[in-house]
Amino acid sequence: MKKLVLAYSGGLDTSYCAKYLSEEKGFEVHAVSINTGGFSQEEIKEIETKALKIGAKTYKNVQAVERFYDKVVKYLIFGNVLKNNTYPLSVSAERIIQAVEIINYAKSIGADYVAHGSTGAGNDQVRFDMIFQTLAPEIEIITPIRDLKLSRQEEIDYLKSHGVEMSWEKAQYSINRGLWGTSVGGSETLTSHKGLPESAFPSQVEKSEAEQVTLTFDKGELTAINGKSGTPVETIEALQKLAAPFGIGRDIHVGDTIIGIKGRVGFEAAAPVIILKAHHLLEKHTLTKWQMQHKDYLSNFYGMHLHEGQYLDPAMRNLEAFLTDSQKNVTGEVYVTLQPYRFTLEGIKSDHDLMNASFGAYGEMNKGWTADDAKGFIKITGNQNKIYNHVNGDS
Amino acid sequence: MKKLVLAYSGGLDTSYCAKYLSEEKGFEVHAVSINTGGFSQEEIKEIETKALKIGAKTYKNVQAVERFYDKVVKYLIFGNVLKNNTYPLSVSAERIIQAVEIINYAKSIGADYVAHGSTGAGNDQVRFDMIFQTLAPEIEIITPIRDLKLSRQEEIDYLKSHGVEMSWEKAQYSINRGLWGTSVGGSETLTSHKGLPESAFPSQVEKSEAEQVTLTFDKGELTAINGKSGTPVETIEALQKLAAPFGIGRDIHVGDTIIGIKGRVGFEAAAPVIILKAHHLLEKHTLTKWQMQHKDYLSNFYGMHLHEGQYLDPAMRNLEAFLTDSQKNVTGEVYVTLQPYRFTLEGIKSDHDLMNASFGAYGEMNKGWTADDAKGFIKITGNQNKIYNHVNGDS
Amino acid sequence: MKKLVLAYSGGLDTSYCAKYLSEEKGFEVHAVSINTGGFSQEEIKEIETKALKIGAKTYKNVQAVERFYDKVVKYLIFGNVLKNNTYPLSVSAERIIQAVEIINYAKSIGADYVAHGSTGAGNDQVRFDMIFQTLAPEIEIITPIRDLKLSRQEEIDYLKSHGVEMSWEKAQYSINRGLWGTSVGGSETLTSHKGLPESAFPSQVEKSEAEQVTLTFDKGELTAINGKSGTPVETIEALQKLAAPFGIGRDIHVGDTIIGIKGRVGFEAAAPVIILKAHHLLEKHTLTKWQMQHKDYLSNFYGMHLHEGQYLDPAMRNLEAFLTDSQKNVTGEVYVTLQPYRFTLEGIKSDHDLMNASFGAYGEMNKGWTADDAKGFIKITGNQNKIYNHVNGDS
Amino acid sequence: MKKLVLAYSGGLDTSYCAKYLSEEKGFEVHAVSINTGGFSQEEIKEIETKALKIGAKTYKNVQAVERFYDKVVKYLIFGNVLKNNTYPLSVSAERIIQAVEIINYAKSIGADYVAHGSTGAGNDQVRFDMIFQTLAPEIEIITPIRDLKLSRQEEIDYLKSHGVEMSWEKAQYSINRGLWGTSVGGSETLTSHKGLPESAFPSQVEKSEAEQVTLTFDKGELTAINGKSGTPVETIEALQKLAAPFGIGRDIHVGDTIIGIKGRVGFEAAAPVIILKAHHLLEKHTLTKWQMQHKDYLSNFYGMHLHEGQYLDPAMRNLEAFLTDSQKNVTGEVYVTLQPYRFTLEGIKSDHDLMNASFGAYGEMNKGWTADDAKGFIKITGNQNKIYNHVNGDS
Repeated sequence: MKKLVLAYSGGLDTSYCAKYLSEEKGFEVHAVSINTGGFSQEEIKEIETKALKIGAKTYKNVQAVERFYDKVVKYLIFGNVLKNNTYPLSVSAERIIQAVEIINYAKSIGADYVAHGSTGAGNDQVRFDMIFQTLAPEIEIITPIRDLKLSRQEEIDYLKSHGVEMSWEKAQYSINRGLWGTSVGGSETLTSHKGLPESAFPSQVEKSEAEQVTLTFDKGELTAINGKSGTPVETIEALQKLAAPFGIGRDIHVGDTIIGIKGRVGFEAAAPVIILKAHHLLEKHTLTKWQMQHKDYLSNFYGMHLHEGQYLDPAMRNLEAFLTDSQKNVTGEVYVTLQPYRFTLEGIKSDHDLMNASFGAYGEMNKGWTADDAKGFIKITGNQNKIYNHVNGDS
Repeated sequence: MKKLVLAYSGGLDTSYCAKYLSEEKGFEVHAVSINTGGFSQEEIKEIETKALKIGAKTYKNVQAVERFYDKVVKYLIFGNVLKNNTYPLSVSAERIIQAVEIINYAKSIGADYVAHGSTGAGNDQVRFDMIFQTLAPEIEIITPIRDLKLSRQEEIDYLKSHGVEMSWEKAQYSINRGLWGTSVGGSETLTSHKGLPESAFPSQVEKSEAEQVTLTFDKGELTAINGKSGTPVETIEALQKLAAPFGIGRDIHVGDTIIGIKGRVGFEAAAPVIILKAHHLLEKHTLTKWQMQHKDYLSNFYGMHLHEGQYLDPAMRNLEAFLTDSQKNVTGEVYVTLQPYRFTLEGIKSDHDLMNASFGAYGEMNKGWTADDAKGFIKITGNQNKIYNHVNGDS
Repeated sequence: MKKLVLAYSGGLDTSYCAKYLSEEKGFEVHAVSINTGGFSQEEIKEIETKALKIGAKTYKNVQAVERFYDKVVKYLIFGNVLKNNTYPLSVSAERIIQAVEIINYAKSIGADYVAHGSTGAGNDQVRFDMIFQTLAPEIEIITPIRDLKLSRQEEIDYLKSHGVEMSWEKAQYSINRGLWGTSVGGSETLTSHKGLPESAFPSQVEKSEAEQVTLTFDKGELTAINGKSGTPVETIEALQKLAAPFGIGRDIHVGDTIIGIKGRVGFEAAAPVIILKAHHLLEKHTLTKWQMQHKDYLSNFYGMHLHEGQYLDPAMRNLEAFLTDSQKNVTGEVYVTLQPYRFTLEGIKSDHDLMNASFGAYGEMNKGWTADDAKGFIKITGNQNKIYNHVNGDS
Repeated sequence: MKKLVLAYSGGLDTSYCAKYLSEEKGFEVHAVSINTGGFSQEEIKEIETKALKIGAKTYKNVQAVERFYDKVVKYLIFGNVLKNNTYPLSVSAERIIQAVEIINYAKSIGADYVAHGSTGAGNDQVRFDMIFQTLAPEIEIITPIRDLKLSRQEEIDYLKSHGVEMSWEKAQYSINRGLWGTSVGGSETLTSHKGLPESAFPSQVEKSEAEQVTLTFDKGELTAINGKSGTPVETIEALQKLAAPFGIGRDIHVGDTIIGIKGRVGFEAAAPVIILKAHHLLEKHTLTKWQMQHKDYLSNFYGMHLHEGQYLDPAMRNLEAFLTDSQKNVTGEVYVTLQPYRFTLEGIKSDHDLMNASFGAYGEMNKGWTADDAKGFIKITGNQNKIYNHVNGDS
């Protein structure tokens, strides 16, 4: 029998695939889902039950949240990556690791086919297909949703007619939850002009009193929250628990999809946004001007290339080498105040702080040089513009 | 008599200069201040009275707010420039135009000397000196504060002993106000870890109810607020009036000074921050991916080079040509909600919106291509990584 | 009858298309070729005769060499564009203008179809299709060679069987000639390790004595050769005539095709390479450091994006605005010595030369500043590294 | 007695310093020279004799050619660094290591002072001072030549009057020789328009018959010449011996000095130029498009920052991490033909060659995709420009 691994989420599209591929197409369907921080144990159990009931021969939930952090999230923090200066790439980043894990699973059980439920209009198909094809060119990709272009109703009818009696109510907002944020799509995000209502966001605002929180970074990684140490995944989750009830980190991302059209999606990502901004502030104190400049440029590209599914380009490894090396002194504490819908970075403390009083505090009397040194500096720093103006008599 | 133009603010340092240079050094002092949006008519009158009383032969206030917008602010908006992703360059940007206007004034009245009150530890001396030297190498620069390194008390005593009986109380926070924002320095900003208290900010929060505001842009320039047209300076000021009572646009900037040390300064800049973010959103809808990428990179440099006083580098004109050309279609409305301490970008409307439903809305059924097209696209887009992996067997 | 415009070169592939589309498919075939500098009048006449004989209803040769210069070559010179630091993009650049001209011709005669003879493995199909689809989405693209994948012999047999008795000997080297250089493909360029033999190059070395030549540029454009003025196209052609008999400007380009595989192609481009290097030298004397830095970065992208057929991206117009603005002072003479297989840039003269003796010649006694100024400059320029080392005690 | 380390070259300027500082100023002078590949054993012996005779208490020659390679040259090769696309940074690169070695030597012998013979008009003073100040802020820098601004004759007279009877004829061309090339300055390089005569170059052309040479690279490093293995320093020297008699690698560099004026200097650098071009070719075959793009951009900056003496900026370490990581697969052979004044890269062989015939050779029938895949690819790749044109109706 033809062995097939199906990326299974428990939703209507992939449930249709499970039934259609096993029953109609004669595949031995092995359902798999990759947990990058979005599933509770109950949800996993529920998905498993559903998968097996609908026709999957086996179901496997791969715990990949640590690998998600190690392979991707870590570099997004090092790079302060916010796509288009807004979006922490929550879903884009997850899909990469999910694709890698799915195809590794398919190889590990000797599957000849791999299937996913993406349509032909989005980014996910590109991320899945490209990574599958690169890592396992010998495994064939099957994509019923993209190929058949059925409506929701047609899928429901098909499942019903094949004995699957489940409720497939469409939520008003489609939600994708993970360690690095939750995306929120709705009728508003299909327009250019409408914002999302309060109710669209999974986390509701429950706290109203300001809270102080201290983030501790070690070589760019978040190692403690309010002095309580943990693995990066644990500290991210701890911060998320603290900050989500403030409704922090909500926004709408507008950007270019891989296929050239513009896309718009809401998100909430309290911990990611706070971490990125706190990390950036710590870097402003500990890195030199040109470290910052190059990091900005390269991280911007890193985010774009990751978003576009080009994670396996060896250029990404070169960029990661740069980013890792840049974090050597990004160690210290960042003080943050959380309030409803917003947070304030109060300041930092670091042994590597370059804002060093012994050299001459900004605006105050100087210690490391004299007035004459400053005049000489300015005279020579201005040389080229002076020559230019002298020669060309304009500007 | 030796004719000298003195950049005069009415503060202790430049008042000391006025007295010292006229009385002690025998200069004919012509005081000048450049209004880039920070002075009211009363303040100007007051400064004039003071200047003449202390010993200036003439006083001139140059109205430069329109030129400030045309020469600098416009490009900061086109480029969405926030230094280190935070600071609208409020003061840095003003100083450039002030330097240009001061030296032009000095040339116009045939002065042989120009004086300013900057110390030897900050950015302003570099901006003033470089622009003075470039535009008028024949005019000598005089900087008593930098050279003499007097304490506040020494300056006050000197003035007293020369018959100037004024009160020179040091404000708790040093404030610099202009069209493009207000900077706030205090004892906290000399540390790395302390934030600014509410009271440090000139605008206090007086509104608590959310307000909707519509920003209209035409080729990147803000041409109307809530449908009311005006020159860009007028619309910026109108928005500032609406938004400042919400306490929007406050933050602390940490960055590299021109002289290589780190500096930290608070600011409030309600209109600038809202405009930059609204403009950026409009660009996300109307520009192509590579327009955005290049704009980001070049604008980042534009801000840095401006901050460092290199405004007269012809490279800046080349960048402005790029930025201007990029704004061709950045026309439309942006909808913003103002709330205490924050604002939300709701969405945009533009005839140039590239998020075009007739081509295939993101995530929905596609219209411009088929599933097979998508597969072909992905196959070939993935070619290089596939070849790399095939040849090198890793990744 | 269905009106079709065929991009016709007179070669076997497009001759097959002409016959196949007119006879087999019932199209009214209007053959067109775009002269971007590669065709003599005799060749055009010959192509016309052939086209009409084979079955085209009309034949049109569009003279586009001036437009080729104005729309593309000019910017390649402004940007000193050599793809991968080697290739003047001879063919890539031509294809863009050819595509634009072909589709404009098709629109002008009301054609419903446009056909080209590219295969499915190369760059040209991408450039043609993308530009056709963008400028005329209503016109259908027909590509028999790509679709049918016939062998040379099959094509010849087909033509014979349809009464076309012509000789279709395959040249040992496939040559593409144009204003901006001639590409040379052969069995060697399909390997990674073989160079091209002397005989592969169309221009043979006929001169052995060194010749001096003076290139005059005005705002970046080549306006005279040895003092003889002309339009840029004329001066390029004049220089080519002088330099080609030296065998200058030959090399092999290796780079990434649009479809992700590596490609290798020989070329000779005497005038283009000399012009680019002479222009670059003139810029080294007349532009500031940051003008050069940004030009390098942006021009590199301009060349890549052009190569990849993305000429219609509005980002390209923004880059052209930058490049044009940067050429303001790139005016002067460049002195070059031509010798067999090589040339030497002797030097330049320009009123805008920033290597200005009155400021302080390099390495000689200084005039614009003192030893103390230099010390002050160095002290402060080194500040950040000193602070970094002081704080972190390493480096 | 005050212990002073003097960077000593044996030339007039540093000989003057040796005498002046020991006799006049009462320093205990410890002369040191750093061999970065430019000194023969005889020259070192000669310099030593001279130093001691003039008044140095000790003389030390530090063998630093291997460290020069490891710390700097290696990265210049990885980055294919040619300043302004011409100059291998021969002297700039040496100065960095010399500065580091001199100050380390000064620290090792407990010196309180360090002296060098640079003037106040050039780059070297900046490189020396900045690195000295950063690595040893406690050691004072003494620079008699910069401070006293004596003429050659005054220096000679002073030495004579203090009993130093040596001949100090000024060579027509000032030559600086090292592992990574030889710079040549003369009266011509002080103009903008004159080239250097044949006789100015240290290596004269002695070979006229073409020679083949094979360069073997391993992870970007040159490990063998014509199959003969060696350390990188050995292989560079072996290639230099082979290629110098062809007069290869000569040119004139024009660029920005650190102090803002333009400088012009001749050089010959046969091995460096051949190695850089061969290495680049190997990269074109083994790196992906985006690896190349980022390498270009970052290497350009690396060269500029090194040239400007900013070697100790930690940003340089981050860039080196990127460059090192990028060399993983830059392994293989490059075939080069040497001829008088020029060389030709024939091709390469590498196990990591991405120009892989099994995927679809460029321009030939495709193997990895179909005509329909190509059409789908093009359709979607063109999406954004199509939408832009559709919406804006221009381009």
